[in-house]
Amino acid sequence: MTVKSTNITRVQHRMARESRWAANSHSGGVLWLTGLSGSGKSTLAFEVEKRMFEEGYQVYVLDGDNIRHGLSSDLGFSPEDRVENIRRVGEIAALFADAGSVVVTAFISPYRRDRELARQAASDQFHEVYLSAGLDVCEGRDPKGLYRKARRGEIPEFTGVSAPYEAPEHPELTIDTGELTVEESMQVLLEYVGRAFAGPGRTKARGALGG
Amino acid sequence: MTVKSTNITRVQHRMARESRWAANSHSGGVLWLTGLSGSGKSTLAFEVEKRMFEEGYQVYVLDGDNIRHGLSSDLGFSPEDRVENIRRVGEIAALFADAGSVVVTAFISPYRRDRELARQAASDQFHEVYLSAGLDVCEGRDPKGLYRKARRGEIPEFTGVSAPYEAPEHPELTIDTGELTVEESMQVLLEYVGRAFAGPGRTKARGALGG
Repeated sequence: MTVKSTNITRVQHRMARESRWAANSHSGGVLWLTGLSGSGKSTLAFEVEKRMFEEGYQVYVLDGDNIRHGLSSDLGFSPEDRVENIRRVGEIAALFADAGSVVVTAFISPYRRDRELARQAASDQFHEVYLSAGLDVCEGRDPKGLYRKARRGEIPEFTGVSAPYEAPEHPELTIDTGELTVEESMQVLLEYVGRAFAGPGRTKARGALGG
Repeated sequence: MTVKSTNITRVQHRMARESRWAANSHSGGVLWLTGLSGSGKSTLAFEVEKRMFEEGYQVYVLDGDNIRHGLSSDLGFSPEDRVENIRRVGEIAALFADAGSVVVTAFISPYRRDRELARQAASDQFHEVYLSAGLDVCEGRDPKGLYRKARRGEIPEFTGVSAPYEAPEHPELTIDTGELTVEESMQVLLEYVGRAFAGPGRTKARGALGG
């Protein structure tokens, strides 16, 4: 994207991200959960946040709740507004990662191009996690009754029903949340987290940090 | 602002902010620096970030560099774009505060109404810090040559020259950066930080946290 701003100069942040990582005993990054409505994004996001917090991580969830009511309160659900919403989430996630946190995002984010932009924003700190539960499973669950509404035509352009979902081609991690239980999915995710973010000298439990 | 989004439900974040505060040994919040161009916002922001980091804080600076080139890269400097930029900064700052960090923002943010919106976004975690160096001092410094350009008419609606600066009426802290040195200003700011964010059982130095 072209930067419209002029009369601003790039200055270096004075803190190296490695200093933040050393202080936190883990690196920062983005865990970008993507999948259909009902694939388990929010459930896994909040559960992994809780578990990682207990392990001493700086971790935070971005989801429809804290984004749509705040930063993106000016946006609706038109195609262009959805694109802009995901763009903003990607940029904020990159800021959190730069600050040394692991940020977990829970958005359908159905388009490859949008997720690619989010990846570019966070560069090597981006981890795409595909929750691959299929439409049949997700629609069968329908925890919020959204598929029912969508089938009745009450929600236009609903992903999987009347709008496409473009599955990731090379996600860092795929979790088959159609087959695995929540706890099994969590184990897969936590194992990945350990590999992706934990430093070698990492103190394992929150208690050991004196918190 | 009216929330355009429908079909989203408010869910509670599962982590209480008090848990984050306890783990970090300090509360989260927003240090919102406001003042004319040249009043010392960036200088103080990066310096306080460095010092607070050394003291073991989770702390991060939002400024024109990491916002204008990313999240607000779609915005220019028209009056409405400036308003939208500050709105976004306020919302992101609130997210960082909610995540348990102290976020330091370094934007002129000349309008009371915009700062009031930022305050509302972060509610009781918002701390307005007015860097009160006057126009004469700031224009005399003119570190980026912007006042010169503005006087030549090369920058339209430049705060203090061709656009107003609305000084805070009840800031949490005022630092007279026209009179005080950078180090003196830092001491005032750090003393405030200690009162505003440090918990009673706070471990003082980064080293004691095992980082």
